[in-house]
Amino acid sequence: MAWNFAAGPARLPDMVLERAAAELFQRGADGACAIERPFTGPGFRAVLDHARQQLSTLLDLPGNYQILFLAGGAMQQFSLLPMNLCAPGQPAAYANAGYWSARAMAEAGKQAAIVEFVPPATGVWEVPANCAYCHITPNETVDGRAYSAVPDTGPVPLAADCTSSFLTAPLAVEKFGFIYASAQKNIGPAGLTVAIIRDDLLERCPADLPAPLSYRRQAEGNSCVNTPPMFAIQMAAMVFDWITEQGGLAAMAAAGQRKAALVYGAIDRSDGFYQAPVAVASRSPVNIRFHLVAPEQTEAFITEAAIAGLHHLRGHAHFGGLRASLYNAMPEDGALALASFMTDFARRYG
Amino acid sequence: MAWNFAAGPARLPDMVLERAAAELFQRGADGACAIERPFTGPGFRAVLDHARQQLSTLLDLPGNYQILFLAGGAMQQFSLLPMNLCAPGQPAAYANAGYWSARAMAEAGKQAAIVEFVPPATGVWEVPANCAYCHITPNETVDGRAYSAVPDTGPVPLAADCTSSFLTAPLAVEKFGFIYASAQKNIGPAGLTVAIIRDDLLERCPADLPAPLSYRRQAEGNSCVNTPPMFAIQMAAMVFDWITEQGGLAAMAAAGQRKAALVYGAIDRSDGFYQAPVAVASRSPVNIRFHLVAPEQTEAFITEAAIAGLHHLRGHAHFGGLRASLYNAMPEDGALALASFMTDFARRYG
Repeated sequence: MAWNFAAGPARLPDMVLERAAAELFQRGADGACAIERPFTGPGFRAVLDHARQQLSTLLDLPGNYQILFLAGGAMQQFSLLPMNLCAPGQPAAYANAGYWSARAMAEAGKQAAIVEFVPPATGVWEVPANCAYCHITPNETVDGRAYSAVPDTGPVPLAADCTSSFLTAPLAVEKFGFIYASAQKNIGPAGLTVAIIRDDLLERCPADLPAPLSYRRQAEGNSCVNTPPMFAIQMAAMVFDWITEQGGLAAMAAAGQRKAALVYGAIDRSDGFYQAPVAVASRSPVNIRFHLVAPEQTEAFITEAAIAGLHHLRGHAHFGGLRASLYNAMPEDGALALASFMTDFARRYG
Repeated sequence: MAWNFAAGPARLPDMVLERAAAELFQRGADGACAIERPFTGPGFRAVLDHARQQLSTLLDLPGNYQILFLAGGAMQQFSLLPMNLCAPGQPAAYANAGYWSARAMAEAGKQAAIVEFVPPATGVWEVPANCAYCHITPNETVDGRAYSAVPDTGPVPLAADCTSSFLTAPLAVEKFGFIYASAQKNIGPAGLTVAIIRDDLLERCPADLPAPLSYRRQAEGNSCVNTPPMFAIQMAAMVFDWITEQGGLAAMAAAGQRKAALVYGAIDRSDGFYQAPVAVASRSPVNIRFHLVAPEQTEAFITEAAIAGLHHLRGHAHFGGLRASLYNAMPEDGALALASFMTDFARRYG
């Protein structure tokens, strides 16, 4: 058995790969398969409606929010968010808490004035009231760090890059103004971003934005202002079906906690052989960052792990070390195999 | 046998669908399939390099051009083109010759001043020299009209939305400054746009553009500024392989002419039962627009065609009537089946 711990593009559910291979390329009575049909026709519209309905149900989506299926990755939203939501001259607040929140802030800085917000240890975030929104990255994929709770930013809408944590646990959508997530971790294949926006924020979108990049136009146009990334949306619908069949987001969160406990447990019981640089209260349940106390053993770890069927464990270049990503599609057996290998490796090299 | 004449998303080659279903979802020794692996790893980089090399060979690409694989559809380029290539205050020229060139012009008008250029009947196009570029749509998908030759715009770079004609015939790339094409007609599944840019134009791209939307950043970053639409690129590589195996662009053009001759022949030999609204010299070889002289028979035509296995023939809502799209992946048997049905229908209803 081989396990893929890549941070994204990442493992997709077995059932989704099987369904995609079996369903998306079979031509029907009209001589067309699912990716060969007009996006304006009833076949694709049914898929799109199903995807939206399944996701709404999973998230228990309040009625005053719209789901958008947008082309491209989350990085594009770093710019589109201020382009859509900031009035001319209006600043936006960014909580800089890691690699990706810093990159989001840097890109947004090309479009709007940035207020770098330093979160308080506790209590309401007193974000300057003139800010268009306050941006956070609830789970930092590279740093392996997660917020333990959704902050309260008062009257300033909270905007969040939820890429690596999306659908791994129930989400209190009503606490956010705008949520976005690249597909390639928990939603489907790369090339799609899911966004969720509160209705009142759609009013802000300037009329002169490029049509496919306008949240308002995409909301009005059912995410079909132009030909959408149909294949990715069709696979996303299958992923939403799979999560539903597994028991929904509470079941994802419970399984995620069990998987994370296995790997963090192997770290914490290693007598310092493995080091987790993130404080326990901030540990990400999906991106587990660690390193060897003897860094010269890192290559041996990666090599032997691969022989044991454990792949894509090298840490992001920004920090080095090791990282294991445990998204929804990683079975507990995968986390168990990694934890067992880690314990054995520590015994042999420690 | 059922044939899909949709204008796009459109029929893909049988061999490509078979390869995609067989190859893209099979996990390898690393526990990952092609859409589950890091886009920075050797597996995807090899696919990307292969796609670029195959396309370069097909186009006989001059050395001073770069190929970009960009997320999203061609409509996004309507805005990104002026954002990347116009200096502040610099106008761009647009030849408005149909539905999609008008839409390209309207979107671009949000980003730059537009000079609407009326092409001369013959000779060099005297485009105002201060224009950043002159934009054309060589094949108008909705109108069914094509330029018979590439215009000479002198020192003003020629920019072209080649979406519906890309790879259907050899292309004199050296006559263009910028070429772009959505994937979903002749390249692969929706969600990808291929762009080709002359090196000197990359210098123009403003430094403060959103990173994934900057042609210069994408050229420097090997189309991997962020996670690209990997699945669509992998299928595009398969389409490029298929075209190569079929004999390249000259073979595509020859087959295209034979297919178009079959359907236009059925129109022209119908004694006026079918009407083609486009002058013979401007007829598109890939999007054949026609209507019945008795429009009340249109629904009967569509219904009976479907019974005969001929699908997605309804014309674009802008013009109504009928349209048959014959892209590369449509076999000659499909065009022959349509032509035979048309002749038979005319005999029965004429």
